[in-house]
Amino acid sequence: MAQHIVVIGGVALGPKAACRFKRLKPGSTVTMIDQSGLISYGGCGIPYFVSGDVSEARELSTTSFHMVRDVTFFKDVKGVDVLTLTRATRIDRERKQVHVENVTTGETTVLDYDKLVIATGATPRRLGLPGEDLAGVSYVCNPDDATRIRDGIAKGEVGSAVVIGAGFIGLEMAEAFADMWGIETSVVEITDQLMPRLVSPTLAAMAQRHMEEKGVGFYFGESVRALEGENGRVKRVVTDKRTLDADAVIIAAGVVPVSELARDAGLAVHDRGGVMVDEYMRTSDPDIYSGGDCAVVKHLITGQPAFLPLGSMANRQGRVIGTNLAGGEARFPGVVGSFVVKLFETSLAGTGLSLEAALAAGYDAVSVLQVQLDRAHFYPTKELMTLEMVVDKKTRRVLGVQGFGSSGDAMVGRINAIAAILPRNPKVEDISNLEMAYAPPFASAMDVLNSLANVADNVLDGINRGVGPDGFATLWNSNGEGTCHFIDCREEADADGYVQRNPGRWHNIPQGELRQRINEVPRDRTVVLVCNTGARSYEAQIILDEQGFDDVINVQGGMAAIKKYGIEL
Amino acid sequence: MAQHIVVIGGVALGPKAACRFKRLKPGSTVTMIDQSGLISYGGCGIPYFVSGDVSEARELSTTSFHMVRDVTFFKDVKGVDVLTLTRATRIDRERKQVHVENVTTGETTVLDYDKLVIATGATPRRLGLPGEDLAGVSYVCNPDDATRIRDGIAKGEVGSAVVIGAGFIGLEMAEAFADMWGIETSVVEITDQLMPRLVSPTLAAMAQRHMEEKGVGFYFGESVRALEGENGRVKRVVTDKRTLDADAVIIAAGVVPVSELARDAGLAVHDRGGVMVDEYMRTSDPDIYSGGDCAVVKHLITGQPAFLPLGSMANRQGRVIGTNLAGGEARFPGVVGSFVVKLFETSLAGTGLSLEAALAAGYDAVSVLQVQLDRAHFYPTKELMTLEMVVDKKTRRVLGVQGFGSSGDAMVGRINAIAAILPRNPKVEDISNLEMAYAPPFASAMDVLNSLANVADNVLDGINRGVGPDGFATLWNSNGEGTCHFIDCREEADADGYVQRNPGRWHNIPQGELRQRINEVPRDRTVVLVCNTGARSYEAQIILDEQGFDDVINVQGGMAAIKKYGIEL
Repeated sequence: MAQHIVVIGGVALGPKAACRFKRLKPGSTVTMIDQSGLISYGGCGIPYFVSGDVSEARELSTTSFHMVRDVTFFKDVKGVDVLTLTRATRIDRERKQVHVENVTTGETTVLDYDKLVIATGATPRRLGLPGEDLAGVSYVCNPDDATRIRDGIAKGEVGSAVVIGAGFIGLEMAEAFADMWGIETSVVEITDQLMPRLVSPTLAAMAQRHMEEKGVGFYFGESVRALEGENGRVKRVVTDKRTLDADAVIIAAGVVPVSELARDAGLAVHDRGGVMVDEYMRTSDPDIYSGGDCAVVKHLITGQPAFLPLGSMANRQGRVIGTNLAGGEARFPGVVGSFVVKLFETSLAGTGLSLEAALAAGYDAVSVLQVQLDRAHFYPTKELMTLEMVVDKKTRRVLGVQGFGSSGDAMVGRINAIAAILPRNPKVEDISNLEMAYAPPFASAMDVLNSLANVADNVLDGINRGVGPDGFATLWNSNGEGTCHFIDCREEADADGYVQRNPGRWHNIPQGELRQRINEVPRDRTVVLVCNTGARSYEAQIILDEQGFDDVINVQGGMAAIKKYGIEL
Repeated sequence: MAQHIVVIGGVALGPKAACRFKRLKPGSTVTMIDQSGLISYGGCGIPYFVSGDVSEARELSTTSFHMVRDVTFFKDVKGVDVLTLTRATRIDRERKQVHVENVTTGETTVLDYDKLVIATGATPRRLGLPGEDLAGVSYVCNPDDATRIRDGIAKGEVGSAVVIGAGFIGLEMAEAFADMWGIETSVVEITDQLMPRLVSPTLAAMAQRHMEEKGVGFYFGESVRALEGENGRVKRVVTDKRTLDADAVIIAAGVVPVSELARDAGLAVHDRGGVMVDEYMRTSDPDIYSGGDCAVVKHLITGQPAFLPLGSMANRQGRVIGTNLAGGEARFPGVVGSFVVKLFETSLAGTGLSLEAALAAGYDAVSVLQVQLDRAHFYPTKELMTLEMVVDKKTRRVLGVQGFGSSGDAMVGRINAIAAILPRNPKVEDISNLEMAYAPPFASAMDVLNSLANVADNVLDGINRGVGPDGFATLWNSNGEGTCHFIDCREEADADGYVQRNPGRWHNIPQGELRQRINEVPRDRTVVLVCNTGARSYEAQIILDEQGFDDVINVQGGMAAIKKYGIEL
């Protein structure tokens, strides 16, 4: 039976659902509407267009083989009718009609549907700041905004830029400004770390330090009060603590789902916005589907509604909707929250829950840190990778893994391996045995992911008692009283400079000599053991445990983590 | 209770098990013996030492932080006693003793054990060829062999090299010779493809073509009859079809487990060699453990015994043994067979079963091919990746994924994601929804792995009826009768050259024009549709299906696969 489908929204999920449906039911018809003139573009590519990695905005709206995904393309190639500059004003569920309006002419009309897809997406969170309308202030929500920013840069109008918000888009935009154009770039963030809630303060500090080395300034725990301009153009950002020069301001304070249309039609909508859908991507009306940036889906770990506005989600969910529109029973069970962001030569990535998110969700969780080479130590392109695993103490269930490292593909590959198994409730031992493909150019014989789980196993068993670089910083900074005795377990040559710079405070006993030099270790103070990455300090801790020392701590990630974290010794 | 552990074999699993045990039971003692003078080296790094990527053989025997893992290291740092040049001659299970012999002095002695670990490893398969003992013929089994090869090269003695066997080590050695030293290099393989049984003929042909472009010659389906020399040095390799010049010959015809000691002691050993172990890595004697290259473990897909001689397996299994020696109950449930090999600028990788292996195991399986960019099409470092998924037709269970691509880390990341979920019996739909972390520098919004599963889904549903480049080659080459009508669905500019070179044979109808030009498509012949990667030819096939054409085939992977496969049009 031929059906008519109406799709509201033509950026990511809408086109995917429409095209999948048409392939399954070529005899049926689809009308896709969008309020803008531009459809089916890769919004996620905008920071890379601003940076110049992508040379033309047009590339964001083409297929892999350079066909522009415009109205004609959708008609000829996909068999989908598209109405641009057309806004849906009301859904009449009883009559199964969508009321629409041409945003240019104001002309209104009514579209009948058998099945409807709501793909209205998300919109940048407005901060309501004085000066938000000044020229040079952008939200980076579409290619037009991006073109304006790039034109401004090309004209030499931008000597300094301020990004408000240290989430994905904020960091990507900060990189774009600082890396490609040498613009003085600052990020102002209201919380006290970048990527808040998504990664630990430790990983955030490592990423921040790398970005600072590349010239990006950060102001955490600051709230923007106003944007000030001259002759209609922005010139300064005023926070509660300082005033920053700014010829360009990017407001990247997150996005909010556009779900008013659904709410007004009486569909179930989450308190904080976002259309509620089941695992078939159906709304509370079985003839209406929704997904992508305007919907909330189930988080597979917490079981709670999750809002994950990502183009990848939209594409996967769009296919499920397309199948189900055609009478199929495809499922989208939910999400674990995988993410990655490139930061200059490094990347920050994760999946599942961070420690903060796990604790907030009520888990009795702990996290462990592991710093290890991403491939065989003798292979020339090796780089250190830092991974953090969040584990439920009682059940040993892995709740999430986050990481920071140099080789982006290598990092995201590890995160994806965890993401793949995470919906199946893996235990720590499952990750210890995870069968990472091995050859020296790609992994260590004991891959960093296996080692990470082994560290978690040892920590849960109480064999490895460690702190991360943040914990080390606290011990180091509070040692005025001399309550801690720091022992560097590396070879003399590696430890020498530290001993000389910290006389009486930093001691060196190579781990291989510890059994013989046990009498040099004090029994009346907390012994803090440090090596390069935490492996030898763990072994040293075991030797001291055996010798009856009862207040010994080893530093997870060792000097590698301490340096990346930014502590000067 | 303090125990004494004896470990036979000191390369990979042995040291891991010994050290893990010592960390858990510092009061116990471990004696590790090895028949050679060199222990705990990264044998997998040998090809990279020969190539010069690793500058000194010593690096293969050091820790990440440059400590040599020798007898003193194991004593001082790990608390493990090591006897080198010591061979185990007999295990007396009743008395719980190992009889050993010093290989230099011939002196014998007896070691008592509470628990024993058999880590005797594997040995290269001997071919028994005439001339095998000539100088210049090597098995590449240890750093001494490798040093000899490299010294020969440095002295200018090697103008041509022949590698016998096109498995992992054979290909890695071929790359080492051809890439770093410009030596004329050939590979002779008895089967008709490289990496037989592990990847499909299609992926093998793509990898072969790349290696040929880099100067490696291949002779498949050939059997080596003899090695001929002059003055005691090898000079030629004689096969059943030709004679090849060779100043160096590498025999890389696989390895066989060393399990005679275990068999002689009455332990259960597999018919084709390899100590049988349970998921606790225990042999048929509960006081004796085994693992690594001398053992067989369970294949988690087929349920059959599997022999996977890889350093990564040895490390993961070694930890399990170490834990269990100390009274723990760690498990190693089995393997899915993940692998990766770097081939110049590309890599070939996989996990689970290839189509051939799946059919041999009795599955009614099919495989599908997908060629797609490994990251956003607008991101500058994008590369095409070819993936093949093997699926059981009835249950839609994913049995394996193999791939060939340019960016090694990106490839192995996808394989690892599949490897992670493979033991949990994923269906095709689970891979369609696999939550790959997304940002344009690392993935497409619909990741290549999601797309691969979507193609499999469409093929299983009968919506996508395709052949791979191998099937295309058959159709193209057998078209003397004109039974096929080839339609290039790309834009005119892309298809032009092909139409001109193949007049009357190669036709061009861009997919977007197909609805209008349907009368140009013949109804009396097999219509073969081709585009760049298979996406548009699939859409074209759907249009023809709708129009009642009943003999339409689209080419999976499209021109990209055809070119990589090496068909000239």
